[in-house]
Amino acid sequence: MLFHVRMDVKLPANMPADVANEIKAREKTYSQQLQCSGKWRHIWRLVGEYANYSIFDVGSNAELHDLLSALPLFPYMEIEVTPLCRHPSSVRDGDA
Amino acid sequence: MLFHVRMDVKLPANMPADVANEIKAREKTYSQQLQCSGKWRHIWRLVGEYANYSIFDVGSNAELHDLLSALPLFPYMEIEVTPLCRHPSSVRDGDA
Amino acid sequence: MLFHVRMDVKLPANMPADVANEIKAREKTYSQQLQCSGKWRHIWRLVGEYANYSIFDVGSNAELHDLLSALPLFPYMEIEVTPLCRHPSSVRDGDA
Amino acid sequence: MLFHVRMDVKLPANMPADVANEIKAREKTYSQQLQCSGKWRHIWRLVGEYANYSIFDVGSNAELHDLLSALPLFPYMEIEVTPLCRHPSSVRDGDA
Amino acid sequence: MLFHVRMDVKLPANMPADVANEIKAREKTYSQQLQCSGKWRHIWRLVGEYANYSIFDVGSNAELHDLLSALPLFPYMEIEVTPLCRHPSSVRDGDA
Amino acid sequence: MLFHVRMDVKLPANMPADVANEIKAREKTYSQQLQCSGKWRHIWRLVGEYANYSIFDVGSNAELHDLLSALPLFPYMEIEVTPLCRHPSSVRDGDA
Amino acid sequence: MLFHVRMDVKLPANMPADVANEIKAREKTYSQQLQCSGKWRHIWRLVGEYANYSIFDVGSNAELHDLLSALPLFPYMEIEVTPLCRHPSSVRDGDA
Amino acid sequence: MLFHVRMDVKLPANMPADVANEIKAREKTYSQQLQCSGKWRHIWRLVGEYANYSIFDVGSNAELHDLLSALPLFPYMEIEVTPLCRHPSSVRDGDA
Amino acid sequence: MLFHVRMDVKLPANMPADVANEIKAREKTYSQQLQCSGKWRHIWRLVGEYANYSIFDVGSNAELHDLLSALPLFPYMEIEVTPLCRHPSSVRDGDA
Amino acid sequence: MLFHVRMDVKLPANMPADVANEIKAREKTYSQQLQCSGKWRHIWRLVGEYANYSIFDVGSNAELHDLLSALPLFPYMEIEVTPLCRHPSSVRDGDA
Repeated sequence: MLFHVRMDVKLPANMPADVANEIKAREKTYSQQLQCSGKWRHIWRLVGEYANYSIFDVGSNAELHDLLSALPLFPYMEIEVTPLCRHPSSVRDGDA
Repeated sequence: MLFHVRMDVKLPANMPADVANEIKAREKTYSQQLQCSGKWRHIWRLVGEYANYSIFDVGSNAELHDLLSALPLFPYMEIEVTPLCRHPSSVRDGDA
Repeated sequence: MLFHVRMDVKLPANMPADVANEIKAREKTYSQQLQCSGKWRHIWRLVGEYANYSIFDVGSNAELHDLLSALPLFPYMEIEVTPLCRHPSSVRDGDA
Repeated sequence: MLFHVRMDVKLPANMPADVANEIKAREKTYSQQLQCSGKWRHIWRLVGEYANYSIFDVGSNAELHDLLSALPLFPYMEIEVTPLCRHPSSVRDGDA
Repeated sequence: MLFHVRMDVKLPANMPADVANEIKAREKTYSQQLQCSGKWRHIWRLVGEYANYSIFDVGSNAELHDLLSALPLFPYMEIEVTPLCRHPSSVRDGDA
Repeated sequence: MLFHVRMDVKLPANMPADVANEIKAREKTYSQQLQCSGKWRHIWRLVGEYANYSIFDVGSNAELHDLLSALPLFPYMEIEVTPLCRHPSSVRDGDA
Repeated sequence: MLFHVRMDVKLPANMPADVANEIKAREKTYSQQLQCSGKWRHIWRLVGEYANYSIFDVGSNAELHDLLSALPLFPYMEIEVTPLCRHPSSVRDGDA
Repeated sequence: MLFHVRMDVKLPANMPADVANEIKAREKTYSQQLQCSGKWRHIWRLVGEYANYSIFDVGSNAELHDLLSALPLFPYMEIEVTPLCRHPSSVRDGDA
Repeated sequence: MLFHVRMDVKLPANMPADVANEIKAREKTYSQQLQCSGKWRHIWRLVGEYANYSIFDVGSNAELHDLLSALPLFPYMEIEVTPLCRHPSSVRDGDA
Repeated sequence: MLFHVRMDVKLPANMPADVANEIKAREKTYSQQLQCSGKWRHIWRLVGEYANYSIFDVGSNAELHDLLSALPLFPYMEIEVTPLCRHPSSVRDGDA
């Protein structure tokens, strides 16, 4: 079941660089684990913004919330979730 | 080069059903041709809305505009385009 | 799996009363069938507005889209869908 | 008498973790007391957000304000209240 | 129990003047009956707009919805309802 | 001459409680003096919000600005002023 | 007593040119009478828009509403009124 | 050449009173010099807000930017500029 | 003197194709004359939208309004004008 | 390939002047290098705002993101990117 997610990162201006870097490193590791597992299908950077569009493939709303709220950057992000379904014109089996 | 596109369809309330159906049929054919060509990479329906999120893979801004403005539903759509680039955490080669 | 849905009805000002009434009658029958089946868990009117807040309980995003897009009033509604999950403070088994 | 309430929690970035945890623990206890009393009928988490949709069943506007303003998280929340009434299509006795 | 209501009237540009006048005359009669009954406590015009701010005093959400949806101008209005309660600084008994 | 005023209070999160309480106490005294004088005709709390809707009866725009900018909470409020006039359907002499 | 007013004109696309011209001619005459009387102090066009910013000098809110609602273009305008008062830095006697 | 300018002042909550007062004093002196020179034609306070509407009369866009960015309060203001021109209905020579 | 202009074209859905084409042809001719004269410095299409960003170089606000309001598509456009000036980092003589 | 970029600078109120000045000096140097290289085609100041409109000419979305995210002021800016293409009415070869 697919969901479209937009994430905007807003780190506090006074967060020390090493703290920020440590959080970002954990974020990257966690994100790549989810991508390899197939749960986090796509992630793209928006040009010029500290933000991404992502596609998640999960079994339920609850699973998506668990994945998102465990993101190391979760306390510093605005997240917007949109449920998706297959488009009647789609020719691509994976976009179910 | 990837672009995120949101399309919202707003057909006039007084458009006759057969006119609408003919436009939608042409739209579907055209969309599937672009999907098969690889230009229109993904298309998903937003649940509960007459709208889609799509990912296009084109060689230039101009090519994207030509593809979009040739959509049979173009005169009846609001379209919002966001340029994408590879996310530093992405593990997926195709999401370049 | 639960979803929060807001529906705002905007009938064209020039729709004849009997056409509107026939659509509304079909809407009511359809809504009550879904409520009795357990798919449409709750529906409440917003005071002073031609709008409702509803809770749906469905197996997938796709099922929700099928139910919503089959609403007789669907072409005349703005619909906003929000996926829900269990709140950690909830004491109510049904609100899973 | 039913009310739809959306609560968005915005804790200050510099609040110490133990202070936040103590407030959240009191919030949970208070919320569960109100749920058990029947005043707070439903609470659902919005997927990916630190926010909830709730349904309250109270005797008056004043009672609702007293309940909400006594929330331990009240100083850190944006709250939006919408009065509800029975929908003419509802088949569920409790959604009066 | 008090509610703050904002009403914005948007009559279709092509409504014949006599139809509009007949609706407005019924609106005025109905409004004045509710004012005399004490249900519609206050009504003020917003300067330069075809809109009003009103205060209603009703026994329940359902009663307010019944009153508002029976307004002859209801199909042509945008209505926004805000529940009120006594302000702790108020010195006026009637503003309970 | 009547004005509709909405006030939203936003105290800084780090203001000490005794400072806040002292300002609120002065605000209450000042508000009640203006209410007793007839200048501040009504004040109602919005349910669930740290905000009020008020009606002022003053001789001029300048007088209203002087009253509002002297509020002890003025530096911490967002204020929105709307000029009112008698509604043609009003039956209440005081709502002139 | 001074008020800042923004007026945006939105004539229906299907209004015949002679009807529009007749209304605009009456609007101009009416506007110039009010300017000569001193009630309508200033009127400026916004560059590139069918809109104006104006300053009115009237004795009361009610007088302003009467002047505005008598504009021949009133049914086709969006109007936004802001009450003004003397700025403490102003050196100009007339801007009281 | 005339420009309409809205300025909203937002001083940081933790700015010491004497610093704020010193900036405001310089702002007043500077504003009055520009008013006396004829560059800053009008300034009015918005009732209930720490904001003003102003009219500037300058020779070019660049001159206006130089005047505004030299305001002592410039770092603490949101400024919105709208170019004006003579309204075809205007009877006032100075409003060119 | 430079101005940034955004134009969004919204033709009525029921405008006959030949009427639309005739207006667009006149628009193109007029636009190209202004471009050749140097008044209309740049015009770019926004990808996926019936809209453009343009840069005008004119002697005054009034001249800009005259140019824009003479556009054959003017009655069908939303236009937003922003005055520009030289950026202190600019190395390009023409962008004065 | 051309892109329209709006940048709004929001420096923290408590940033020391010398830190701000050092960042701005690096920003200027970097901007001028990109301008001289032809990548950053235009930059204009918005009158009265700490903001600019710019036109970039780059080979890909990724190149634009790399240029923008390397701006010394990047952490303190809101950036909005719009892809452009040649307007069918354009007479200017460079605006391809």
